[in-house]
Amino acid sequence: MHPLALDPDRLFPADPGTRGLARALYAQVAGLPIVSPHGHTDPAWFASNAAWENATELLLAPDHYVFRMLYSQGIDLDALRVPRKDGVPATDPRSAWRVFASNYHLFRGTPSRMWLDHVFAEVFGIDRLLSADSADHYYDTITDALATPACRPRALFDRFRIDFLATTEGADDPLVHHAAIRESGWKGRVVTTYRPDSVIDVEHEAFAGAMQAFADLTGEDVHSWSGYLAAHRKRRADFRAAGATATDHGFATAQTANLSTAQCEALFGRIVGGNWTPADAELFRAQMLTEMAKMSVEDGMTMQIHPGSCRNHNAALFHSHGRDKGADIPMRTDYVGALKPMLDVVGNERDLTIILFTLDESTYARELAPLAGHYPCLRLGPAWWFHDSPEGMRRFREMTTETAGFYNTVGFNDDTRAFLSIPARHDVARRVDCAFLARLVAEGRMQDWEAAELATDLTSTLVRKAYKLDPGALEVGTA
Amino acid sequence: MHPLALDPDRLFPADPGTRGLARALYAQVAGLPIVSPHGHTDPAWFASNAAWENATELLLAPDHYVFRMLYSQGIDLDALRVPRKDGVPATDPRSAWRVFASNYHLFRGTPSRMWLDHVFAEVFGIDRLLSADSADHYYDTITDALATPACRPRALFDRFRIDFLATTEGADDPLVHHAAIRESGWKGRVVTTYRPDSVIDVEHEAFAGAMQAFADLTGEDVHSWSGYLAAHRKRRADFRAAGATATDHGFATAQTANLSTAQCEALFGRIVGGNWTPADAELFRAQMLTEMAKMSVEDGMTMQIHPGSCRNHNAALFHSHGRDKGADIPMRTDYVGALKPMLDVVGNERDLTIILFTLDESTYARELAPLAGHYPCLRLGPAWWFHDSPEGMRRFREMTTETAGFYNTVGFNDDTRAFLSIPARHDVARRVDCAFLARLVAEGRMQDWEAAELATDLTSTLVRKAYKLDPGALEVGTA
Amino acid sequence: MHPLALDPDRLFPADPGTRGLARALYAQVAGLPIVSPHGHTDPAWFASNAAWENATELLLAPDHYVFRMLYSQGIDLDALRVPRKDGVPATDPRSAWRVFASNYHLFRGTPSRMWLDHVFAEVFGIDRLLSADSADHYYDTITDALATPACRPRALFDRFRIDFLATTEGADDPLVHHAAIRESGWKGRVVTTYRPDSVIDVEHEAFAGAMQAFADLTGEDVHSWSGYLAAHRKRRADFRAAGATATDHGFATAQTANLSTAQCEALFGRIVGGNWTPADAELFRAQMLTEMAKMSVEDGMTMQIHPGSCRNHNAALFHSHGRDKGADIPMRTDYVGALKPMLDVVGNERDLTIILFTLDESTYARELAPLAGHYPCLRLGPAWWFHDSPEGMRRFREMTTETAGFYNTVGFNDDTRAFLSIPARHDVARRVDCAFLARLVAEGRMQDWEAAELATDLTSTLVRKAYKLDPGALEVGTA
Repeated sequence: MHPLALDPDRLFPADPGTRGLARALYAQVAGLPIVSPHGHTDPAWFASNAAWENATELLLAPDHYVFRMLYSQGIDLDALRVPRKDGVPATDPRSAWRVFASNYHLFRGTPSRMWLDHVFAEVFGIDRLLSADSADHYYDTITDALATPACRPRALFDRFRIDFLATTEGADDPLVHHAAIRESGWKGRVVTTYRPDSVIDVEHEAFAGAMQAFADLTGEDVHSWSGYLAAHRKRRADFRAAGATATDHGFATAQTANLSTAQCEALFGRIVGGNWTPADAELFRAQMLTEMAKMSVEDGMTMQIHPGSCRNHNAALFHSHGRDKGADIPMRTDYVGALKPMLDVVGNERDLTIILFTLDESTYARELAPLAGHYPCLRLGPAWWFHDSPEGMRRFREMTTETAGFYNTVGFNDDTRAFLSIPARHDVARRVDCAFLARLVAEGRMQDWEAAELATDLTSTLVRKAYKLDPGALEVGTA
Repeated sequence: MHPLALDPDRLFPADPGTRGLARALYAQVAGLPIVSPHGHTDPAWFASNAAWENATELLLAPDHYVFRMLYSQGIDLDALRVPRKDGVPATDPRSAWRVFASNYHLFRGTPSRMWLDHVFAEVFGIDRLLSADSADHYYDTITDALATPACRPRALFDRFRIDFLATTEGADDPLVHHAAIRESGWKGRVVTTYRPDSVIDVEHEAFAGAMQAFADLTGEDVHSWSGYLAAHRKRRADFRAAGATATDHGFATAQTANLSTAQCEALFGRIVGGNWTPADAELFRAQMLTEMAKMSVEDGMTMQIHPGSCRNHNAALFHSHGRDKGADIPMRTDYVGALKPMLDVVGNERDLTIILFTLDESTYARELAPLAGHYPCLRLGPAWWFHDSPEGMRRFREMTTETAGFYNTVGFNDDTRAFLSIPARHDVARRVDCAFLARLVAEGRMQDWEAAELATDLTSTLVRKAYKLDPGALEVGTA
Repeated sequence: MHPLALDPDRLFPADPGTRGLARALYAQVAGLPIVSPHGHTDPAWFASNAAWENATELLLAPDHYVFRMLYSQGIDLDALRVPRKDGVPATDPRSAWRVFASNYHLFRGTPSRMWLDHVFAEVFGIDRLLSADSADHYYDTITDALATPACRPRALFDRFRIDFLATTEGADDPLVHHAAIRESGWKGRVVTTYRPDSVIDVEHEAFAGAMQAFADLTGEDVHSWSGYLAAHRKRRADFRAAGATATDHGFATAQTANLSTAQCEALFGRIVGGNWTPADAELFRAQMLTEMAKMSVEDGMTMQIHPGSCRNHNAALFHSHGRDKGADIPMRTDYVGALKPMLDVVGNERDLTIILFTLDESTYARELAPLAGHYPCLRLGPAWWFHDSPEGMRRFREMTTETAGFYNTVGFNDDTRAFLSIPARHDVARRVDCAFLARLVAEGRMQDWEAAELATDLTSTLVRKAYKLDPGALEVGTA
């Protein structure tokens, strides 16, 4: 058996001088509270504070970062107990864990490996590496720990020193878990984010049902253009009441539009009338990004745009297993032309914050940094999804900083549904940022005290400002 | 005169600690046999085992990596004795070599320089740098050596410790050289690869002739859709009988299609009927990639896709000199949409191996790693052609590993017609991989024993598995 | 207050061994004269040799690299005294400087910061960092210095050891300042560059006026195709008489065309007749690139192509402030297909030099290096604009050298209107190139004496050759 021990200098440059600088910067930020302004944890966990069942249910079966890699090497998802659309396979959770453990070498060199090792060592105190031989030891240790009070969701939230955690809910969500959290008296700041994709994207399989819920929850005539917009305003207010400071939008492209009211009404008529073309569907999503931006000017909510994923690329797997099964593939994404119609409307607004994300790294230096380095409303979200990794984060800084600077970026997003990995992910981000700053100092490109200021800014200051987390911040933007 | 001496630590990181790690990893793999699963050496060399004539004929006139660089600086191809369509120019081979030698500084910083120096030092024992002053010494030393038995093709094959060498032949090739190799009793494993481009691409200038040979060799009615498919099956069997374990496909795009049989028949009718449009030609190539993938499910042959080269970009040069004269230029390449029709058919096949290559590095992290990190049938070929270089290989690992891992890659391809450079190319790949692994260890991202396992996997294990080189492997995939 | 002190080892790698190599290479080139073959300084400065007024007028209000970053963080351009179309805002220059100083932290990690610190320290001898506290000290120190003879344009030109400086003028420019410079007897070599965009791009807002001036200056019938071409020839001769050795072309794309004379005449008729479509406008720009290339074959002028910028992206800002206000955003750019029509005509000309620039780094390794590594007429311009930065230059070398070598590149361009920053920019380029060469030596990829030769070549030799700066060079290319 091989030991599991986290290297205290991991992710720092090998050159001793630079490593020393990185270590000092990291020491300054390692203990700062976690701010997680965008993610996909389940608010029900914090509402109910129920214990998780076992290692497989918590760490393997729901995590598409993990099971997609195993699947890519020919391992059946049933063998990993990944739920099908029609139910959970009969596989024994311990057997599923053993399959995972026996194939842990597949994760060498991946961020999943770093995150998992961090969880195993720091949350569960395990000191040997995961493998076929240690599979049962892991399964038992983790499953036993999960049954203890110390591993309940709220206890871990406190232990992880999370200061702020945003979940993401659809426009059709009644927000009952967030209500329960507030009513429980628990002090953890777990808030929602307004993600109205399913009532905007008529090509989404849930559109019809989501529109019905949208109507029911708002009492608006969501089939008229004005009623539809009013419904969005009501729900945005509901979400703000549930603590939300931000909205989120994730379509296949970043296309925006700037139509007249008459054009909007005609287009919306085709959308809700069911006689739309794919071009109509795209134009409506495009126009709605602009409408959401205009509402953000009104209500001060920070707007996030996450474009460029070709969802559900594997047709057979989507049929059998549904969404979020590791088959979303990034696509080439345009921002320069796509965002112009929206920026023509709101680009020069100083109190508006629109955070742009990308899965297409070729846009970092070419499009995103120049856009964010000019327009007052634009900021760059951190390296996202496949690029939320040491090399991905390094490329993000190397390709955006020289044009956009550090102050047009917004700190780190963990963007995860894997709650236990949140400290690991923030730790990686802090280490990579400190390594980058250390290199700038070592190469005489920045003074040491500036790097120290930036280490804190990149960890705390920028995220709090961009997501308007501090008292009164949201009101600043209110019209 | 300047000395020529290969630095034993070349391509290792400068940081002493990391260098030490890289050196240790490299020591472990430096002597492993060469597996060359994809390349363009001439099987006639190994069939006839005839001596090469002189330095120019072997190392300069046929190597478009070399003469294109000289051409780019205004040197006439005739002066380098590069063959024209209508024959070899009258230039004296020694004069051609002198022109090359006088311009050797143009190759500074290029992989060609590294490969050539390696050949000069290791194969021919030369200890001074190539230059105008040493041109004749080089020419004489090399030409004299080539006349000796030790420099015959089979002797070098053994001296290079080549375990497996695949050449590439068209569907219209009678495979006589491979037959001669087998009949000769020589033990070297030199096999072919099925590359049917010229009977699939109706825009290829050799299409008509190749189709005739395809008909003659198979006895099938290659002008009916069913006969055409049957002819492919027959030739694939012929190639397997000549040792082939793989097919190869190199069109301008990666577009695939998934047509019904009726659609295929109608399309094929237009192709062979001569009344096709460019869109038909593209759709037929697209459909045939899917057909080839389906046949690989049947016969277990590994499928290689090499898209994205704009062939013969220089019209005047193509007119005077023909193909493969250094004027093929990479293009932006899409995979996400392009491969979906084929993946809808075969994407979830576990015994199928499709190896994807690219000349568009922006697809590494954005498209290829996510695709290979999900679909069981997909693997990533190594950095290809212009990217088969130290920086190119480093970018390949940095941009694919975090999403696809190491185990969705397939080791190294030298992909060369320059036989003497094969050890040099594999040596560069081994060094760059060891340097990458050493960095991961130095940065606490991997344990040393894991890097050691991977060094061997990247050199031997993965290539043998992906190309099904071991006894019985090909049968595994047989339906 | 924090000190301002330039690190003598800035931009060199941290590893001590590699740093030593870089330092030695840099020592060899640090003092070489500056050759600035492409830029946007105002020739009136050198003609009149008048003093600049104050720090704000010289360093802040005209520099869109600087004020765009401040604007991106919500600072009003009026507060920075950036001129509007209808005049200069009433802001006091000292107040504007204070706003800049108070926000100097925004530039951390950017090349602007490096350039500005270099100017502050080396030109003005300031030893404390710019900040709110030092704002007035800076303003007074700089403004006082500008009033002295030592800070007049010609004095600085000499002090900066500039050997050659090219400005850029339109085809409608009477070149009076260059005439005045020549007539003044001053020895500084300040020449012009022929940039005929405004008489070629019918979508340019200045097209009509520029065409009128073009007619007036040449006496040609610029509304007939033959007269229009004759006018270009005359003006190219005028520019050569004013010292020009190069032309420059900056359209949104790199598209070229190769039309027959009849097609050209018909297209030109639509352009000047006012009944053109956007496709006509693009086709005309495309054809004119080919015409310019053909004229360069005739007259030997080096041709520069700077494509890929989406100019004036911010509609409101363009309306209020006009061009060059930091709102030009790079776009994805194709070269392989776009340049082929022109290369079909002139690609194999050995005495022609066409220098390609890009804002789309994904084309470096994929398209530009392979093109320049084949076609005799093509060379690669240095990392441009947003990529004229330490990381950008490093990526340029890493992504072009292995395919194009060093000798298909052309040294450094500062491309700036910020005259005082020219030494700083060249210094950054020399340091980054020396760092790159040092790494190649440290990694055993190049011998030390080769790196030494290259350091000088990259600083002096290549730029002089590519821009034909030495006596007789221009005539070489003359038909």
